[in-house]
Amino acid sequence: MKHNFGAGPCILPKEVFQEASEAVIDFDNTGLSILEISHRSKEFEQVVLEAEALVRELMNVPTDYSVLFLQGGASQQFAMVPMNILPEGGKAAYLDTGVWATKAAKEASKLGNVEIVASSADKNYTYIPKNFAVPADAAYFHYTSNNTIYGTEIFEKPIVPIPTVVDMSSDILSRVIDVADFDLIYAGAQKNMGPAGVTLVIVKNELLGKSGRVIPSIFDYQQHAKAGSMYNTPPVYSIYVSMLNLRWLKAKGGVDVIEQENLIKARTLYDEIERNPFFKGTANEMDRSRMNVTFVMDNAEQEAAFLALAKERGLIGLKGHRSVGGFRASIYNALSITSINALVDAMKEFEEKQSS
Amino acid sequence: MKHNFGAGPCILPKEVFQEASEAVIDFDNTGLSILEISHRSKEFEQVVLEAEALVRELMNVPTDYSVLFLQGGASQQFAMVPMNILPEGGKAAYLDTGVWATKAAKEASKLGNVEIVASSADKNYTYIPKNFAVPADAAYFHYTSNNTIYGTEIFEKPIVPIPTVVDMSSDILSRVIDVADFDLIYAGAQKNMGPAGVTLVIVKNELLGKSGRVIPSIFDYQQHAKAGSMYNTPPVYSIYVSMLNLRWLKAKGGVDVIEQENLIKARTLYDEIERNPFFKGTANEMDRSRMNVTFVMDNAEQEAAFLALAKERGLIGLKGHRSVGGFRASIYNALSITSINALVDAMKEFEEKQSS
Repeated sequence: MKHNFGAGPCILPKEVFQEASEAVIDFDNTGLSILEISHRSKEFEQVVLEAEALVRELMNVPTDYSVLFLQGGASQQFAMVPMNILPEGGKAAYLDTGVWATKAAKEASKLGNVEIVASSADKNYTYIPKNFAVPADAAYFHYTSNNTIYGTEIFEKPIVPIPTVVDMSSDILSRVIDVADFDLIYAGAQKNMGPAGVTLVIVKNELLGKSGRVIPSIFDYQQHAKAGSMYNTPPVYSIYVSMLNLRWLKAKGGVDVIEQENLIKARTLYDEIERNPFFKGTANEMDRSRMNVTFVMDNAEQEAAFLALAKERGLIGLKGHRSVGGFRASIYNALSITSINALVDAMKEFEEKQSS
Repeated sequence: MKHNFGAGPCILPKEVFQEASEAVIDFDNTGLSILEISHRSKEFEQVVLEAEALVRELMNVPTDYSVLFLQGGASQQFAMVPMNILPEGGKAAYLDTGVWATKAAKEASKLGNVEIVASSADKNYTYIPKNFAVPADAAYFHYTSNNTIYGTEIFEKPIVPIPTVVDMSSDILSRVIDVADFDLIYAGAQKNMGPAGVTLVIVKNELLGKSGRVIPSIFDYQQHAKAGSMYNTPPVYSIYVSMLNLRWLKAKGGVDVIEQENLIKARTLYDEIERNPFFKGTANEMDRSRMNVTFVMDNAEQEAAFLALAKERGLIGLKGHRSVGGFRASIYNALSITSINALVDAMKEFEEKQSS
């Protein structure tokens, strides 16, 4: 058995893979592959409607928000957000908590003025800046809620006097949030929502149509909202598999149930990192992510030895990002506690071998 | 057995569906689903490299062109083309041969000046305009090579004094073209290349980096070229299935072999439309598409009766687009002559029933 700790695209539930595999041969008893059906067929329109309904239900999305399934990943949102809500000559405020936050700010700066309200670059993004001021005259405040590379996460939405936009690519649907706290949420699907190739956008309708910019239709949230995410041919299979995964999450009991599991998973692993003298965490304790657990050892030799042991035990995807080194265990929704325990066992085994 | 004449997303070869289905459970003997592997894994990097190599080989792409796999469909290219190659204040020339050509021109007009060099709107796009003049001071000339809705196709590239951009979404890989005749080719995958969710762009490198515009990275062809289509997380599964489909096309003998099959398929169906007194084609004979065959009957009652008979015979996706009416048989690469014969048989059966 393999335990997939990869950072994304990542593990999804086995049941989802099974059904997703079958639909490539015969979708919904149509006698056709999900890959060859028209996106305008009533069967597929039903898939999009159900996916949207599941997002609304699982996240308790207020009715005055649109729920969109787009393409291009979070990286495309780095451009679409300012295109849609940053007026020409206007200013946006960005919090810098890592590579992705930096990229988001850089892309926005091509379309307007960007003010970095705070940054944790001074300590290689191992902590989340607090007590920063956000200019009241900015069009919006942007932050990244979970920083996959550095293993940090922002659990409490900063209180700011302007609309808040959040990149939730790697922690959406992993814990309960109040959507009404935000004005625009976006997330590449390929962590907790589904496979690569689709992007979720949840946006408060009143935010739109005010930038005064001429926006190409394909980048205009209002066009996609009006068309129910079918402005053009959508990424059919990625939406379908996301829908299956959202069904799985609902059947499990929803976001509050998965949040409890995620808390236990994260706690179990962080506890072992703290206990085991061979490992140490890299992120500031109060900012530690529940999705990506980053940790290191004393030297490169030990790390290589542990990675080899991990591989033997079927634990994969554990190598840390080059800018942090060591290990990163991505422990998304679909990763079971069994896999966490397998990792903890390997850490203990390593300790025993070294100590004997 | 179902015969899928849908306009797209459309039929792909059964062998491709089979392998695509298996990879959702176990990709390439990794023990992992294709949906959960990292796009940075060597296994998936190999997929992208092979897909690009297959496009280059099958289409004989010159080395000074980039081959890119992007997201957002042809509709996103409607905006990305002018962003990348239309200077601010510059002019582009568009040929208007249908709804998609019109949309392409409309989106470009948001970014610069657009001159429509000719249009067949006067006859509901049933023909391809000829003998039009293209302004030598325009940045590029754009046309749509196959018009799915109206069943027309442009087989000979118009000779123009400026770079040519072509939307080949619905006839790419269906017939031999000389890529060197073009400066930029784009195509949503979901006809002859693969499933929905990925877009092919083939662009002459010297065309790029000259518009003088500040382009968000995600919309900049040069960024994608530099990153080998991995600027950000690509649409993993759509690229994988496209790669399988390109392999299938190569194993069949390549584009010249499929072109001969496509010629026979189209000829067989057009012959029956001409012979059978109950049907008539809608497109100008010399401009008739080999990919989408549009035809009508004398009245709506007959059409409903024929559609019912077709359905009984397992022939699906034949209903014409609302702006043309009647029928549209999309006969893409993966549709076999067996399906064409089944349609012709149904047309003959209808004739006999009506005549008896």
